[in-house]
Amino acid sequence: MTTPIPQAPVPQARFITLEGGEGAGKSTVIAALRDALETAGEDVVCTREPGGTPLAEEIRGLLLDPQHEAAAPEAELLLMFAARAQHVRRTILPALQRGAWVICDRFTDSSYAYQGGGRGLDAAFIAELERRVVGIVPVLTLLLDIDVREGRVRTNTRDLWPDRIEREQEDFFARARGVFLMRAQAEPDRFRVIDASRPREQVAADAVAHLLALRESSR
Amino acid sequence: MTTPIPQAPVPQARFITLEGGEGAGKSTVIAALRDALETAGEDVVCTREPGGTPLAEEIRGLLLDPQHEAAAPEAELLLMFAARAQHVRRTILPALQRGAWVICDRFTDSSYAYQGGGRGLDAAFIAELERRVVGIVPVLTLLLDIDVREGRVRTNTRDLWPDRIEREQEDFFARARGVFLMRAQAEPDRFRVIDASRPREQVAADAVAHLLALRESSR
Ligand SMILES: Nc1ncnc2c1ncn2[C@@H]1O[C@H](COP(=O)(O)OP(=O)(O)OP(=O)(O)O)[C@@H](O)[C@H]1O
Ligand SMILES: Nc1ncnc2c1ncn2[C@@H]1O[C@H](COP(=O)(O)OP(=O)(O)OP(=O)(O)O)[C@@H](O)[C@H]1O
Ligand SMILES: [Mg+2]
Ligand SMILES: [Mg+2]
Repeated sequence: MTTPIPQAPVPQARFITLEGGEGAGKSTVIAALRDALETAGEDVVCTREPGGTPLAEEIRGLLLDPQHEAAAPEAELLLMFAARAQHVRRTILPALQRGAWVICDRFTDSSYAYQGGGRGLDAAFIAELERRVVGIVPVLTLLLDIDVREGRVRTNTRDLWPDRIEREQEDFFARARGVFLMRAQAEPDRFRVIDASRPREQVAADAVAHLLALRESSR
Repeated sequence: MTTPIPQAPVPQARFITLEGGEGAGKSTVIAALRDALETAGEDVVCTREPGGTPLAEEIRGLLLDPQHEAAAPEAELLLMFAARAQHVRRTILPALQRGAWVICDRFTDSSYAYQGGGRGLDAAFIAELERRVVGIVPVLTLLLDIDVREGRVRTNTRDLWPDRIEREQEDFFARARGVFLMRAQAEPDRFRVIDASRPREQVAADAVAHLLALRESSR
C-alpha cells in the first residue's frame, strides 16, 4: 500500500485551540468560549491534550504521572503525537464533520513549545510528525501569554502535586514561551496573542471577541 | 538547541534480535541462545519488544490489551517507537556499554513488518522514525520463518485470549511475513533466515550456530 506524500496540515474551520504556559488561564477561558458559542446556538465540543479519547487519556497518565518511569525526550514526543493521532481521528474530526465547534486546550503548538523549545528536540522532526499523523491545524489559536513566574504563582496555590512537566525549571518554560511567541509572529492569521496577566474577565472578553469575530467573518 | 542531522542507524556488536511471525518459536529459541552464551561465560540480557523498561511495558499493555480502545494505525506506530526509544536508552545501550550481549525478542524490523506491511503505513516514515529515535541496528537478526497458518496452529493451543495483534486476519500476517523476507534479502549480512517449521531442537541448533559463528568472527 502506498501512502500519499504528506502535504502541509489543512486548516479546519470551527477548530479553535488555546495555548500558553502553566497558569495562563486556558481552562478558565475555555469555559467562557463555550458559553459564548452555546448562547449563539452552536454545538460545541471542549477537549484537551494530551487526552481527549480513552486511549489518549491513558497516554496522558503515562506522561504526566510522576509515579511512572520518566520518558526519555524522544519517547515523550512520540507519546504526545500518538495521543494526538488518536484524538484527531476519534474525537476532533468526527465532531467537526458533524458541524460542531471544537475547542481544544493545547494542541500541536504545545509540542513545538515543550518538546521542541523546552526539551531541545528538532523542530523539523516535529513538523514531519505533524504532517504525517496530525494533518490538520486550527483556524484560530488563542495564545494566552504571561510571564513564567506570574503563571506559576497562580498554579502553585492550586497544585499540591505538580505533574511531571509542571516540575520542570523556569528556563524550560521560558524557552517554551519563546517558541509560542515566535510561532504567533510567524502565523499572524492563525494566532491571536492575548495578554493573560490582566484580570480574568478582561482576558475572557478578548478571547470571546476574537472567536465571535471569526464566526462572523466565516458566515 | 540543534539536533545533528540523523544518519543511518549504527550497527551494534553483541546486539542480536529475533524476528518472525506468531508462533515461529522466538521465545523458545531465545532460551537456547542465552544458554549457549552463558555457557561460554558471557554476560547476557534478554529483553523484548514492545517492552523492556517499566514505561515501555506500560505502553505494551496499552497496545496489546484488547480491553483498551483500539489505537489508530498511526497511533500504534508511534506508541511502538515511543516504547523503543525508551528501551534503547534505558535498557539496551546501557547493557551493551557494560559489555553484555543483548538478545531482543522483536525490534525495528517488526515495525516495518506489522505497522508497515500489516497496517499499510509508509516505510519511508518508519525509516525516519528509526533514524530519529532508535539510531541503532542489531549486528545479527535471526528471522524464524514459518507459514502463517502453521505458526498460528502453534499459538492457538497456547493463547485462549489472543492479544490485539494476534486477533488480526491471515492476510495481515502474510503481508508481514513478506516484508520480513524482503528485508532479509536486502540485508543478507545482518539477517539469517531459519526454517522454523522444523522440530525445535533443529531450529535452536541453527540459531545457536549462527550466534557462535558471529562471536568467533568478532573476537
Ligand atoms: N486572569 C487571571 N488572573 C488571575 N488568576 C487567574 C486568571 N486566569 C486564571 N486564573 C487562576 O489561575 C489558575 C490557573 O488558571 P487555569 O487553570 O485556567 O490555567 P491553565 O492555563 O489552564 O493552566 P494549566 O496549564 O495548568 O492547565 C487558576 O487558579 C485560575 O482560577
Ligand atoms: N520448532 C517448533 N516445533 C513445534 N512447536 C514449536 C516449535 N518452536 C516452538 N514451538 C511451540 O510453539 C508455540 C509458540 O512458540 P514460541 O512462543 O516460542 O513462539 P514465538 O515466536 O515466541 O511466538 P509469539 O510471536 O507469540 O511470541 C509454543 O507452544 C512452543 O512450545
Ligand atoms: Mg488548564
Ligand atoms: Mg514469544
